[in-house]
This record gives sequence, C-alpha cells and structure tokens, in this order.
Amino acid sequence: MEKILVLNSGSSTLKCQLFTMYDDYCEVIAKGLAERIGLSDSRITITFKDHPPVIRHLPLPDHEVVLKEVLDILQHTVLHDISELSAVGHRLGHGGEFFNRSVIIDEQVMQKINDTMELLPLHGAAFVHGINAITHLLPKISQVAVFDTAFHQTMPKEAYLYSLPSEQYEKHRIRRYGFHGTSHRYVSEMAADILGFNGRFISCHLGNGASVTAIRDGQSVDTSMGFTPAAGIMMGTRCGDIDPYIPLYIMKHQNKTADEVNAMMNKESGLFGASGGFSDVRDLEKRCLQGDSKAITAVDMYVYNIIKYIGAYAAVLDGIDALIFTAGIGENSSFIRKKICDRLGYLGIKLDENANHRRGERAVVSTPDSPVKVLVIPTNEEYIIARDTYDLIANRRRKKSFRVA
Amino acid sequence: MEKILVLNSGSSTLKCQLFTMYDDYCEVIAKGLAERIGLSDSRITITFKDHPPVIRHLPLPDHEVVLKEVLDILQHTVLHDISELSAVGHRLGHGGEFFNRSVIIDEQVMQKINDTMELLPLHGAAFVHGINAITHLLPKISQVAVFDTAFHQTMPKEAYLYSLPSEQYEKHRIRRYGFHGTSHRYVSEMAADILGFNGRFISCHLGNGASVTAIRDGQSVDTSMGFTPAAGIMMGTRCGDIDPYIPLYIMKHQNKTADEVNAMMNKESGLFGASGGFSDVRDLEKRCLQGDSKAITAVDMYVYNIIKYIGAYAAVLDGIDALIFTAGIGENSSFIRKKICDRLGYLGIKLDENANHRRGERAVVSTPDSPVKVLVIPTNEEYIIARDTYDLIANRRRKKSFRVA
Repeated sequence: MEKILVLNSGSSTLKCQLFTMYDDYCEVIAKGLAERIGLSDSRITITFKDHPPVIRHLPLPDHEVVLKEVLDILQHTVLHDISELSAVGHRLGHGGEFFNRSVIIDEQVMQKINDTMELLPLHGAAFVHGINAITHLLPKISQVAVFDTAFHQTMPKEAYLYSLPSEQYEKHRIRRYGFHGTSHRYVSEMAADILGFNGRFISCHLGNGASVTAIRDGQSVDTSMGFTPAAGIMMGTRCGDIDPYIPLYIMKHQNKTADEVNAMMNKESGLFGASGGFSDVRDLEKRCLQGDSKAITAVDMYVYNIIKYIGAYAAVLDGIDALIFTAGIGENSSFIRKKICDRLGYLGIKLDENANHRRGERAVVSTPDSPVKVLVIPTNEEYIIARDTYDLIANRRRKKSFRVA
Repeated sequence: MEKILVLNSGSSTLKCQLFTMYDDYCEVIAKGLAERIGLSDSRITITFKDHPPVIRHLPLPDHEVVLKEVLDILQHTVLHDISELSAVGHRLGHGGEFFNRSVIIDEQVMQKINDTMELLPLHGAAFVHGINAITHLLPKISQVAVFDTAFHQTMPKEAYLYSLPSEQYEKHRIRRYGFHGTSHRYVSEMAADILGFNGRFISCHLGNGASVTAIRDGQSVDTSMGFTPAAGIMMGTRCGDIDPYIPLYIMKHQNKTADEVNAMMNKESGLFGASGGFSDVRDLEKRCLQGDSKAITAVDMYVYNIIKYIGAYAAVLDGIDALIFTAGIGENSSFIRKKICDRLGYLGIKLDENANHRRGERAVVSTPDSPVKVLVIPTNEEYIIARDTYDLIANRRRKKSFRVA
C-alpha cells in the first residue's frame, strides 16, 4: 500500500489529493485547495473521506508555505507521520519534446523541465515552485512529473509542424505541443474500457480551457491546442484560432503591446468576449433562453468551432467510432452536447435525448443503433497522476530488488 | 455587342483581358500582362486572338503609364478607336462589409473602396491605382468593381466572427472576410451546371494563394481565408492558420518587428518555408519521388491542412455532394488531388485514377458510383468580372431607356 500526494500548482492556487493505492485498488482520502496564493485573504480548504473538513485562513506568500501547511494538516488528520507518504506526483504544464511519458524527477529531469518552462511564460514558474517546495520540505521523497503535453507526443509531423520557415521549429522549438493530454488520455482509456475496443475516438475536453483531440488506437494523432493553450477552439476567455495577422494588426492599429494583445486573447476573448462578459455556459444557456442575442451568437460560435474540429478530425481519422465529452461543460451541459451532436448526423451520430439529460456521470448518450457512440466521461487527471506515480516508484523498487538467482 | 476591358492591378503587375460580349456570347480577343511596374526592366506583353503578339520594353513608373500604353496598343491592333470600349471591370481585393456584389463605380462607391483598402495594407493601394488611372485616361467610361470578398458576404455570424472581445468587430471591423470569392463563385456555378443541381459543395482554390470554401445552394457559408489572406490552409509562401501567440512570441524572442513577422508569415512560410525553399508543387512532386524528406514533409503537411478543412466543412454542410478543385495546383496536379481524395473515403469520395490524370481541363474525376462527385474546373475570374460588368451596364441602360407606355 502506498500513500501518494498529487499536486497541481497554479500561479495563485494549489490543488492536492491524497491517494491510498495498491496494485489493484485506488482511493482518494483527502482533497485540498489553496486559494489566493501571494494575495490577500488566502486560505486552504481540505476535505476528507473519513474526517471533518479543515479550513485555515492564513497568509500564503508562496507555494512552500502552502505545502508546509498542507503537510501539517495531513499529519494532524489522516497521516500518523509524514514518512507514510511514498511519493509526490506533480502535474506539469509542459514537457516539450523531452517527455513523452511521466518520469521520476532527478537532477537531469529537473534541468529539462526548467528548460521547457520557457515555452510557457504565463504559468511555467508555478509548476516548478511546487516541485522546489517539496524538494525543500521532504528532501528524500520520490517525486514524479506528469506532463500535459506527453500524450500528444505521438502526433505525426504533418500534425505538429506549422508551415513557418523550418528553423522556427528546428531552432526555436515552435510546433504544436497540445495540452490537456492527461485528461484526453484518461477519457480515451475509459472509453476503450466501456466500448470494449480501441478505435477512432474524438475527445472533447470542454472546460474553461478546452481542446479537441483525435485519438487512434489509444494514441493522440492531433489536437486543437497548439504551441500554447490559446489555440484551437473558442474557450471561456481564450480566443482559439484566429487569423495570424490579427495580433499584429491590433498592435499596430490600436497601439497595444504584445503582452497586452496576448492578455486580450487569453483573458478577454472566447465566450466572455463574444457574449459581452459571460464565460460560464450555465449563464449563457439561461441568457439564450431569454433571447439575449449576444449570448445566442456566442453559443452558436462555440458549437460551430467545435463541430469544425470534430469534422476535421473525422477526416484525419477517416471516420470515427466514438465521440467523448469531458470536463466541466462536456460532463454537465446537455444543452451544448445536444447542439453539437445535432449537427453531426452525417458522421453517423444519433444522440439519445433522454440519456443526454444525465449530468456529471459516466454514460453512453447515443442511441443503441447509433453507428458512432457518444460517451460522457468525467475526467480525472489526478487519478492518472497518482497511477503513473505509483507505477514508476513500484517499478523502480522491483528493479532494485531484482537479483538473478 | 460590348467591348469590355478587365483589369487586375497588383503592386508591380497589371493583368488585362479584352472581351467581346453579347447577351449570350463571350470571347476574349486580347490578353495582356505588364510586369515590374516601378522597377527596372519593365515590359508589357499583349497576345491576341487574331493578331500577332505585341511586346514593349519601356519604363513603367506607375499604373497610369501602363494603362496609357495598353490602350495605345489596343488602338493599334484590335480597336479602331478607344471609344469602342464600353466599360472597364476591375478586380478589387477587398469590399469589406459594404459590398456583397459587384457595383458600378461612382464617387460614393469610391469613398467606400478607399475606406476598405485600409484593411489590406499590403496590396490595397494597387487596386485603387488601376481605377484612378482609368478615371484619368478615360473620364467618361463606366467602371465596375468586382470584389474578392463579395461572394463570402453570405457567411453566417458564427462563421465570420472571431471570438475576440466583440468591439474588435463592432468598432475595428476585425472579422473573417475571405478572399478568392470570384473564383469560388465561378467554379461553384460551373459545378452546378455540370451536375445539374446546386447542393453542398466544397471548393478548393489551390494556387500560390489558396483557400477552401463551403458552399450551400450557391452561397458561401464559410471559407478558410480570414481577416487577411494569410489565414486558412498552408500556401505557396503563406503560413495559413497558426497558434495566435506565435507571431507575438517570435517578436519577443527573436527581436523582430510586427512587419518583419508579417513578411515571414506571408513570404517565407508555407510550402516554401517547410520544404526549405520550394513553393512550386511540380518541383516538390519531383523531390518527393527522389525521396527528399523535407519535400515529403511539406507535401504531407499541405495535404493534411486541406483534408482538415474539407472535413471541417463537411461538418458545416452536414455532408457534401461535390468536391471541386481549381487554380494552378487544383487544376493541374493529379498528384495532390489523389493524395487528398485518398484520405476522404469516409465522406464517400472515390477518385477515378484514370480521369484524374487529365490536367487543366474541365472534368469529373470521381468514379461513376462515387456518392460524392469530384470535379476539376479551371477557374476564370476575368470571365466573372467581364460578365458582371456587362450585366451592370446593360441593366443601367435598360433602366434609363425604360418608359411607361
């Protein structure tokens, strides 16, 4: 039995889950969230399977203070001693071309991680803060890095290269990396389990960030996010694909800096920008029903963006066997799922409207005779991180103990 | 009978064709090209249906000098007097949201054209030079403007809006306009003629510039070029769609100006950038057969870009009836056509490999039992410009002569 702590460090938040794992068993015994790190009114909330929740309001200047506090709470609740922790698994936003799978963190890995984080200017540092804090607080513990990009390293060249001068890739590493890989990997594994086969799947991770991935036999062959998470489909506040001259045109004609334009594309665009201030699909659904024309346009654009990607990936895969919805909107919005599926009859998609009313649970929502299956699968990136962490440390232990008889 | 001069003014070139037209008859009697306008070694070449060609080497400082010379050559060859010309039709690169069809140019139209050309910084001025030169040389002649964007003005909101903050459209006019409209319109009309019906067509204009358009019942419903012609599929030297952060990233990390990045995206990218210097598909085909890995990658990327758009538009149209190839590569490269069609079996496309060997002529290249028809249709933008010009001046004349009995 291993106790594994999974960390997801954002710039001002840190999420954690504590898992108990055996080879064939896995359970979450604590879930925590630290909010407003580096800001006023910061706090940590941890809920437990078998213990009342703990909420602490206290200054949280950085990730190390947060983690010290989290470890302290765990030690006073579900752990007798911190030494019970077997390993810490980290979600890492970017693995560049170095990492096509999860790895145990050592000095060499850390160098490559630092090198890669340059490609993620907005969030890169936060991921590394989490690792550094654990290294400092628990210097002997095994740490594992699980990368958002790793699952997409199987994309073929024609999918990941941009048609810029080739030195932009060879020298400057500009290519499609794709993100949300852990989520797409999880739901495609679950889909194969449910359906009993691995085939041509299109997975729609529709949360505040959103991406669509084409998966063949369990491997990512293309994905809508690109060099950065700003590309692909329209999202909560990100613009997705636009004419590549637009950012330059806005700089020139509206007297903005590159950083200002980038902030606009990431924080003021998407559903929020198109609807006049609403990024939450639940609000937009209400407004659509009330006849708000901007909300209707924003939702039409959103659905249209997604069906274009599904259509493109159906071409990439030469047809599809299953369409998967996951993440906040994908799991919960029967409204959006219906709008998408209603436009995909030509692919052989028949939505079961009754089944589609279910929210947030694993379900087949296509009709029994639908040639293409439509699945709703709640994502669970933490589970994949815990499992990869468990497998890597168990494997290392086996290797160490292996002696030729 | 009308004699109509059609002009296509580029920044350093001017193409012209002289048409003889009746209501039910149309013939090209002269075709001209002025090269290197404003540069050294400039020249004009005009070929004729019934007259030996004329080539003049002379300094061509601007479009007015070019047109004076062209009119002089025509007067000494196929026209007795310049007054035989009924009208001049101009290709205009941009009509903004003002023009959803061709129009007779008057002062009000000219104001709107000038206002729109701001959206086309690279080429905008050249189009207007052509009109101004004719106004100066032939002040009384009727002039008609035919816009590259007009055909796409039927796109619905969800297709033409970008998910940027909505004031970027409302105030700054940033939206998808699309280009090559005259070509897409011509080939979709021809396709409806050949097939005997108007349905769900996808038209691939594959030249040095390239775009894919989704057409329903003769109307454009989406197109791959966007706010500018740099967007959409990979082209000869243009990059097409890339992550919107890339232009800003290159500026910041490679110390380039917005104009330098824009020049890179328009002149050093596409097939040229990916293959290491080859933008001509004939060269690339040879190099692919020789096993040049960069050429193979560039062609794979090109085909992949196109099938993704065809797939996306199949979703937009809820299936397709016909796929149309036109422009230099589309009309002539059986190599590229085959590579594209071979990946679209799931849509019901069956290429007839024998028929596909034909080049540069109107042909159905799908098998007789192919559910989706594949057509090659040589484009003819000049014909549309001449016909629109003829129709508009004939209509005006009819209106003027109309008296209630």
